[in-house]
Amino acid sequence: MIILPRSAIEALVDLDSALAAVEAAYIAASDGRATMPPVGYLVFPENDGDCHIKYGHIAGDPTFVIKVAAGFYGNPAIGLPTSSGVMLAFSAETGVLEAILLDEGFLTDLRTGLGGAIATRALCRADARRVAIVGTGIQARWQVRCLRQAMPETPLTFTIWGRSQDKAQETASVLASEGIDVTVSSDLERLCRDAEIIITTTPSRQPLIQDAWIQPGTHITAIGADAPGKQELDTALVVRADHRICDSLEQSLDHGEFYAAFRTKGISAENCAELGAVLGGKAKGRVHSSDITIADLTGIAIQDIAIATSVLDAYRRSQAR
Amino acid sequence: MIILPRSAIEALVDLDSALAAVEAAYIAASDGRATMPPVGYLVFPENDGDCHIKYGHIAGDPTFVIKVAAGFYGNPAIGLPTSSGVMLAFSAETGVLEAILLDEGFLTDLRTGLGGAIATRALCRADARRVAIVGTGIQARWQVRCLRQAMPETPLTFTIWGRSQDKAQETASVLASEGIDVTVSSDLERLCRDAEIIITTTPSRQPLIQDAWIQPGTHITAIGADAPGKQELDTALVVRADHRICDSLEQSLDHGEFYAAFRTKGISAENCAELGAVLGGKAKGRVHSSDITIADLTGIAIQDIAIATSVLDAYRRSQAR
Repeated sequence: MIILPRSAIEALVDLDSALAAVEAAYIAASDGRATMPPVGYLVFPENDGDCHIKYGHIAGDPTFVIKVAAGFYGNPAIGLPTSSGVMLAFSAETGVLEAILLDEGFLTDLRTGLGGAIATRALCRADARRVAIVGTGIQARWQVRCLRQAMPETPLTFTIWGRSQDKAQETASVLASEGIDVTVSSDLERLCRDAEIIITTTPSRQPLIQDAWIQPGTHITAIGADAPGKQELDTALVVRADHRICDSLEQSLDHGEFYAAFRTKGISAENCAELGAVLGGKAKGRVHSSDITIADLTGIAIQDIAIATSVLDAYRRSQAR
Repeated sequence: MIILPRSAIEALVDLDSALAAVEAAYIAASDGRATMPPVGYLVFPENDGDCHIKYGHIAGDPTFVIKVAAGFYGNPAIGLPTSSGVMLAFSAETGVLEAILLDEGFLTDLRTGLGGAIATRALCRADARRVAIVGTGIQARWQVRCLRQAMPETPLTFTIWGRSQDKAQETASVLASEGIDVTVSSDLERLCRDAEIIITTTPSRQPLIQDAWIQPGTHITAIGADAPGKQELDTALVVRADHRICDSLEQSLDHGEFYAAFRTKGISAENCAELGAVLGGKAKGRVHSSDITIADLTGIAIQDIAIATSVLDAYRRSQAR
């Protein structure tokens, strides 16, 4: 059996292979080839923590994957990271445990970044250049890295805004050290009015991005809302958008960014499409250059399966050399 | 982080501590102190396999546990065991993964044996001596071992029946090598008519144990039925029993031994009680020595939490020495 610590996993990751694997997995999910039972969930209110169990299988794959991801929001106060987690890969032919990826949440962060980049690339205007990043956490960084990787030929410019200017500056410095220039903005409205692509990555519980700020042709990828009560985009903006795309219709309408508009009957399920269907050519994404498009990503097990399989493939190749 | 292979886990298990831990956990579950979300489930029809994910937390416990157990029924034909599995223990205070128990299904087998022994001890007549074991698989062995351990002062006698006399003889030989005498029977009806305790451990899909065979005063622990379509006991016998006890009312009435009687309206939920409530003195078990009692055990996450915690406690004690 294979046991890989985080450092080994980080060294094995190849972003291009991982991008291709996650994109193919989205298509498999929308084709009905994936089994993804409801997410398992435990809460620890006394310690401000929760734990998600995502698992599933793509028909024909030799491996199935179970991912456990915990978030304990008081951890930073005692010097521990908020997120932790592990992925388990089993043989779909014998049930035998084949690998334990002790990724400590790294692969969840990465696959979320990859999902955002895939959605953004698929839905933004071909001539979009100006990217606004809203939020300064770990996911802000991954969205920039993965989008940069997914669109290597496009001269994107990145500007970041956060409630804390210091944190925005810190994120810009980290990315600069990796060779990606990021400007810091202190004016969220102006940033949004100027942007052609907006990526939101905050845990906000009230809409940050106002409808009036968004120009025709803008694409927005919303990553933050993944639980009841979280919302980053003005409900009117969700209703106004020309195309609403999500990774999981069931999750997005129940506890994602589309929930508020759905609850107030501003949109119905028929007004939304799944990302895999768009990627597979079965549903429309952007049609006109003046369309406003929104991608809401709550995260699905298929991303975990794809990223775990991608790491294991890389490990096996490295051993075969 | 602690990683324990099966051999280390086997060496650490202390049956008396484990019995006490599982019994306390049943009581916690019936007291409402346990969180046990619905069991996660994946099926692999092409490979005759399935995978269960059981998880939960007992309020106040420093640890929460996720157990993955797979059963692939064609494995023996390729020289692999049917069952495999792993248990993960996480801190309920920080979400950090604390231990991986690579038990390969051993702890599931053991905790199922312990659950049966606890139910049998709690519900059989004080003067019961003659134990009938129906079925010859791994669980037949564990039921004998655990009951022997749970009732050390009682001179129990064990007789086993299986569809294959050879397998019954093999199980008797294995147990004899561990110092437990087991007689083999070739006549299931006669065995049941003579028994004071009957423990059924088969994957039968039609009732093996007929109502007419069961004498007043008998206790039956039914382990086998754990999925839709499985049934070991005559429906009339389940209806006729004076007390019906199960580990999980929800599971037993949905896909356990009590399902057939419940579906045909021979019993209702009010005619059943949970084992934890009986152990905790909140529900009646056996009242009269002539009562027929049935315990149906489908398996609950709380057993996994208890057994994993028990092994980890033993490991930590061994390290502290």
